Amino acid sequence: MEPYLTTLPTLPDIQAAAQRIKPFIHRTPVMTCAGLNEVTGASLFFKCENLQKVGAFKFRGACNAVFSLSTQESQNGVATHSSGNHAAALALAAKLRGIKAYIVMPKNSAEVKKKAVHTYGGEIVYCANNLAAREKTLNEIIAKRGADIIHPYNDYRVITGQATASLEMLEDITNLDIIITPVSGGGLISGTALTVHYLSPKTKVIAAEPAGADDAFRSLQSGTLQSSDHPQTICDGLRAALGTLTFPIVQKYVSQIITVTDELTIKAMRLIWERMKIIVEPSAAITLGALFADKIDARGKRVGLILSGGNVDLDALPW
Amino acid sequence: MEPYLTTLPTLPDIQAAAQRIKPFIHRTPVMTCAGLNEVTGASLFFKCENLQKVGAFKFRGACNAVFSLSTQESQNGVATHSSGNHAAALALAAKLRGIKAYIVMPKNSAEVKKKAVHTYGGEIVYCANNLAAREKTLNEIIAKRGADIIHPYNDYRVITGQATASLEMLEDITNLDIIITPVSGGGLISGTALTVHYLSPKTKVIAAEPAGADDAFRSLQSGTLQSSDHPQTICDGLRAALGTLTFPIVQKYVSQIITVTDELTIKAMRLIWERMKIIVEPSAAITLGALFADKIDARGKRVGLILSGGNVDLDALPW
Repeated sequence: MEPYLTTLPTLPDIQAAAQRIKPFIHRTPVMTCAGLNEVTGASLFFKCENLQKVGAFKFRGACNAVFSLSTQESQNGVATHSSGNHAAALALAAKLRGIKAYIVMPKNSAEVKKKAVHTYGGEIVYCANNLAAREKTLNEIIAKRGADIIHPYNDYRVITGQATASLEMLEDITNLDIIITPVSGGGLISGTALTVHYLSPKTKVIAAEPAGADDAFRSLQSGTLQSSDHPQTICDGLRAALGTLTFPIVQKYVSQIITVTDELTIKAMRLIWERMKIIVEPSAAITLGALFADKIDARGKRVGLILSGGNVDLDALPW
Repeated sequence: MEPYLTTLPTLPDIQAAAQRIKPFIHRTPVMTCAGLNEVTGASLFFKCENLQKVGAFKFRGACNAVFSLSTQESQNGVATHSSGNHAAALALAAKLRGIKAYIVMPKNSAEVKKKAVHTYGGEIVYCANNLAAREKTLNEIIAKRGADIIHPYNDYRVITGQATASLEMLEDITNLDIIITPVSGGGLISGTALTVHYLSPKTKVIAAEPAGADDAFRSLQSGTLQSSDHPQTICDGLRAALGTLTFPIVQKYVSQIITVTDELTIKAMRLIWERMKIIVEPSAAITLGALFADKIDARGKRVGLILSGGNVDLDALPW
C-alpha cells in the first residue's frame, strides 16, 4: 500500500479527510456578532473551534491521522510529545479508534493538562522538561511499542485534518475577503491556506502571531526557518516554531503575518467573552487582536476568524 | 381594535409571536456535551439563550411586546422599571422599532447595567432604590409621555415571547422527558409550560429556583402567592416573585419546583464554562444545578435545559 499523504495535500485529500472525520467531530458553528462588527467596522465571521471536541481544532488533525491508519498500522497505537491540546486530541481520537495513545509530557506539566489526557484514556509517559528528553523518551516508546508518531503539526495528515475547519467555513460563508488564523507550528494556517488556495483564491489568508513569539514572522522575512527561542506570550498555544513541512506552505500561500501584542490579545479575548458569551483562549482571541493592530484595513470587508480553542484556566484569567 | 393578548396565550398566539420576532432575534443553537452527559447520566440538550441578543431570553418577550403594538400605540414609546436584562432587551427592541424606551432604574444600579441600556439607546430615568419609588417614577412617565408599560414578566405579550424559546427547542429536539428552566417572576417558565402543554404534553416541566429566593416553591406549597422578601442568592436574575398572571400558569402546568443551593449552581456554572466553552450566568446554570440536587431521577432520560442568559461580571466570578 502507498504511504498516506507524503506529498502536499490536494483538494481531494482535504475533502476525503472531511468525510473521514465527520462521524467523530463537531461541525462547529460560524457565529456573528453585531457588537463586534461595530467595534471593527468589518463583517466578522467566527468559526468556533473552541466548541470543537477537546475544546480545540487540534482534534481534527489528530482524528484524520488516527483514522487514516490501516488496521495493521494502527495496532501498536500512536504516540506524540505534547503537553497541550494536541495531547488531549490524540488521546480522544485513539480512544474512539480503540487503540493506545502514548503521550510524552514533562513531569512538571500542569495538572489540568495531565487530567485531560487521562480523561480521554491516553497513557502519559513522563520525561524531563527539555526537548532532548522529550524526543529521547518518544523514540524509546517507538522502539518498544512500535507506535506511529503523530506530530502536532509537521505531518501532512495533521495539516489536512486542520484544513477541514476552513473547508466547512467556506461552505457556510461565501465571499470572504480575508481569513485570519493564529500561527504557531503552522498546522492550522497551512491547512487553511491550502483550502483557501483551492476554493477561494481571492480570499487573503493572514496569520496572527504573538509579538513575543514571532518566529514565523522572522522566518518569512529572512526566507529561512527561524527557531522560537524563549517565547514570551500569554498565548500558551502559540509558542512553537514553524516546521519543515509548514514553512514552505506559509511562504507560498499566506499573504501576511501580523504580530500582535499580548495587550491587544487580552483586549480581544475579553471582548469576545463579553459580547459573544463564548470562552476562547488567548491563542484564539489573537485573531481579533490582529484587527486592532492597525496593520490591515478591514473596514467594510468580510473577515473570517478561526477561533482555534477555548481551553483556559478559569482560576488564572488575564484581567 | 381588540386589545392584544388579554387572555391565556394559545398555541397560535405563540406561533404568531415566533413569526413576529423572527427577523429580530437569533435562532439560538441547542448544544450537547458528551462530558456533561457522563457527569449526569442523562442526555442533555442545552438551549443557548445566553447567545441570544442582549445575552438573554428576555429579548424575545420584549421584542414580542414592542412589535405587537399598533403604529398608534407605539408612537409614545414603551417604559418599564428594571435594572436587569429586561431593561437592555426592551431598549434594543424599541430601538429596532424606532421608538423610545424609558427605563426606570435606581441611581445606584451597577454601571455595567446603565451602560447596556445606553448602548441600546434606552433613556434611563433614575429613582430611589425601593419599589415605591420605582412605581411612582414609572407612573409619572406614563402620565407625562403616554408610553406603554411593558412589565418584565407579568404580561401575556412577554410570556408569549418567552414561549418561543421552547417552541424552537421542540422543533429541534424530539421526545424530551423533562425540560428545566429557571424561575423568578415566571415569564420564561410560564411560556415554556404553555408551549410544552400544547406540543409535548408528556414532557415534564420543572422549574429550578434558588434555595435563598424560594417564593415560587412556597407559593406552590401554600397555594397562595408569596412574596420574595430579602432574597439571598448569587442568581441576580432570580430574585423577583411570581406575578398574578404567571402564578396560575405555574400552578397548573409545572410539574415540580426544585430549590438549588448557590453551591450547586456555582458548581454547575463552572462545569458549563469548562466543558461547553460558553459563558452562562448563575441564573442559567441553576438548571444544571437542579440535576445535582438529588431531587429528580434524570438518569437515562432526555433532558432539555434552557440556559437563560450569559451576562456576568467578568471581574467578579464566583470561584
